[in-house]
Amino acid sequence: MTTLITNATLIPCSPDMPVIERGYVHIEGETILAAQGGPVPAIAGAEMIDAGGDIVMPGMVDPHCHMAMTLFRGLGEDVDDRLYRYVLPMERKFVTPEMVRAGTALGTLELIEGGVTTVADMYYYETEVGRVVDAAGIRGVVGQTIADFDPPDHKTIDAGFALTEDLVDEFSGHPRVTPSIAPHAPYSTDIPVMRRVADWADRHPDVPVQIHLAEMDSEMEWCAKHYGLRPVEVVEKAGLLRPGLICAHCLHVSASDIEKMAHARVCVAHNARSNAKAGRGIAPVEAMRAAGIPVGIATDGPMSGNTLDLFSQFAPVTMFQKLLGHSRKPMPAREVVRMATIEGARVLGMDARIGSLEPGKQADLIRVSTAAPRMQPIYDAYATLVFSAMPVDVGDVMVAGRWLMRGRIVLTLERRKVMRDALQVAAAFKAEMARIDANA
Amino acid sequence: MTTLITNATLIPCSPDMPVIERGYVHIEGETILAAQGGPVPAIAGAEMIDAGGDIVMPGMVDPHCHMAMTLFRGLGEDVDDRLYRYVLPMERKFVTPEMVRAGTALGTLELIEGGVTTVADMYYYETEVGRVVDAAGIRGVVGQTIADFDPPDHKTIDAGFALTEDLVDEFSGHPRVTPSIAPHAPYSTDIPVMRRVADWADRHPDVPVQIHLAEMDSEMEWCAKHYGLRPVEVVEKAGLLRPGLICAHCLHVSASDIEKMAHARVCVAHNARSNAKAGRGIAPVEAMRAAGIPVGIATDGPMSGNTLDLFSQFAPVTMFQKLLGHSRKPMPAREVVRMATIEGARVLGMDARIGSLEPGKQADLIRVSTAAPRMQPIYDAYATLVFSAMPVDVGDVMVAGRWLMRGRIVLTLERRKVMRDALQVAAAFKAEMARIDANA
Repeated sequence: MTTLITNATLIPCSPDMPVIERGYVHIEGETILAAQGGPVPAIAGAEMIDAGGDIVMPGMVDPHCHMAMTLFRGLGEDVDDRLYRYVLPMERKFVTPEMVRAGTALGTLELIEGGVTTVADMYYYETEVGRVVDAAGIRGVVGQTIADFDPPDHKTIDAGFALTEDLVDEFSGHPRVTPSIAPHAPYSTDIPVMRRVADWADRHPDVPVQIHLAEMDSEMEWCAKHYGLRPVEVVEKAGLLRPGLICAHCLHVSASDIEKMAHARVCVAHNARSNAKAGRGIAPVEAMRAAGIPVGIATDGPMSGNTLDLFSQFAPVTMFQKLLGHSRKPMPAREVVRMATIEGARVLGMDARIGSLEPGKQADLIRVSTAAPRMQPIYDAYATLVFSAMPVDVGDVMVAGRWLMRGRIVLTLERRKVMRDALQVAAAFKAEMARIDANA
Repeated sequence: MTTLITNATLIPCSPDMPVIERGYVHIEGETILAAQGGPVPAIAGAEMIDAGGDIVMPGMVDPHCHMAMTLFRGLGEDVDDRLYRYVLPMERKFVTPEMVRAGTALGTLELIEGGVTTVADMYYYETEVGRVVDAAGIRGVVGQTIADFDPPDHKTIDAGFALTEDLVDEFSGHPRVTPSIAPHAPYSTDIPVMRRVADWADRHPDVPVQIHLAEMDSEMEWCAKHYGLRPVEVVEKAGLLRPGLICAHCLHVSASDIEKMAHARVCVAHNARSNAKAGRGIAPVEAMRAAGIPVGIATDGPMSGNTLDLFSQFAPVTMFQKLLGHSRKPMPAREVVRMATIEGARVLGMDARIGSLEPGKQADLIRVSTAAPRMQPIYDAYATLVFSAMPVDVGDVMVAGRWLMRGRIVLTLERRKVMRDALQVAAAFKAEMARIDANA
């Protein structure tokens, strides 16, 4: 099966970050054979798609999400103690395999509609997440959470590892679903647990490790109180600060932390909206990138960042660094798009296969319309993508050569069923909130 | 002509900011007779519109814009000296009545598509802006800029006043277009000019005065150097710090400035994205509101904030205040919506006629779909509007009882012609940029 997408404003996200007018992409099966300008080859029987000048770029990579939490979106907004008042008790009561499937399906629907083709997830019953990701046709790094706070799917750390083993058994070798282990955070997977994760990871070199790191004031205090250390140092002490560790947040990182992180070759998932919405602060993204740390742009869970598209993160990502730098220059639009694509892929250890449109890579791509008034004029396609584009501009989405969305119609999920299932769970949540508030 | 919009999630933005499930709006001609819950009256011959549970709320108010600058959108993005390198020379060369019409038409198209029904504009050839606003059917406070830096449409301050007189002559008494005078900023309309504006305004009590204020470091330095004062103090010294003065930005305001502003009963147009994108800082919105100053949410010109909808401003507006307050609590979603509607109307001195859906007010309203996956579930409609909604969710827009958009089709502008005219100007701009860069 050959596909030729022609007449594109091609943004391949190859190292020089060119913008190629009237470019084309040549796809053979699941693989890109060419993505370039110049004359389009004549190939008998090829599916020909005229992009009409639309932007064609790599599918975006979201390196930190809790998809099933779509069902909590907007719940307790602006309430400082919402985590302890609503979320944790409700998770204990309502998180089941069915709930995780319903919430993850809603999440994947939104990801596809917004042009995200690869997501790293961390939640419970992660085998269910893997199954939904598989059926939806996107790529996922699905991370089974391990934590010591009596989470919904494991009473003990042993049980958490057992769930992880099941996950690995089911998805090992899967072309799109990568099983992952996710120790929750330094304060909830104390050093002995992190040591055990590090040992386990030594025996499973293909399984990425994800962790929440240096996100909260309370985490800083916990680490100081228990070890006299900073969060990055606690993870280092546990032997978990290692190549490819996917660290979400990294707000509270000092110059010395950044040096340790760069030396250990860890990666960072930056959650701009989530961190700011909680009033936590601004991660030093420019400093981390200057140290050579790959930093991707993440949505975080929809209870924290609300939307699961990267366009909504773009303006915050760059605005926050410009505020830190007190100048218009930091984090130019081109670098934001780089972070959302090839650099996000690097964060997940997948940059050899995805993240850019280059020969030999997997055909994960999206088509972005520039027809809306807010998208015109275009002096710099990167500025247009970062400051004007919105998820609704994504018309078509392809993963591994397969169309997941054409003309804004998602082909791999039953939209009505997904919405109905989600709203059914939400109705139960609403009743529980009313009960909690009545008893408060 | 009677219209009944039923089955709405009604957000009237009346003082208590209720959310009324299954509410209705009763419109008679250009006026709202009722906006409430309960049984819908039976009125023979009424146009009946079932909102199907969609959100119905007041049209939004953008109290600071430079609409014609849509044509500069994204030009020189991330370039620190873009103002002197590109914008000012290009404005002198290209700003004509035709260019202003083309750019303003593109701006009004985007405003309507995003649910903004009232805009305060500041630019050149403002009579042309008023004409485009009139034809598009929205409301505008159209401010003729007066400045001493040889702007495109007046060589002298006298000529600037003459243009303002023409504007007032043409639009005085117009039901939707309010002529306005816009001294540019303290540093570009020094005290003698601001004094003259204050005198002129005394003789034209119905003409709102707009000014850029306390926006830039260089402005602070100018005011300190010339007068040993802060920008707010310079305006006060000129006698222009007066009730109803529409002050755009107000980033660099001290506690004492805020006290003076509140005492003088000025109003503020907050430009969150614009200020952050330029790396300038965060305006103390919570402090200004706590002092009783009305603060509206503005887009600024599309060269500064890029988009002309308020949804794109909502998350930044609240995130920035949460960052300042280091907590999830400041600037709750409900207050953000209040600022975008009734408080924005107050900033423009129009709150007796627009800004909320209340009996006797003008029928300026929008219908917002909640069908997109990112909009669900809804636990708090304000959180949904602030953190999930996007301009594309606006389906219908009404101003003064007249539909300007139905089912995302704008009825008052020829979309193709608007886009064609805009792109023709943009082509000339691109050629000029290339010339400037070649000669640099």
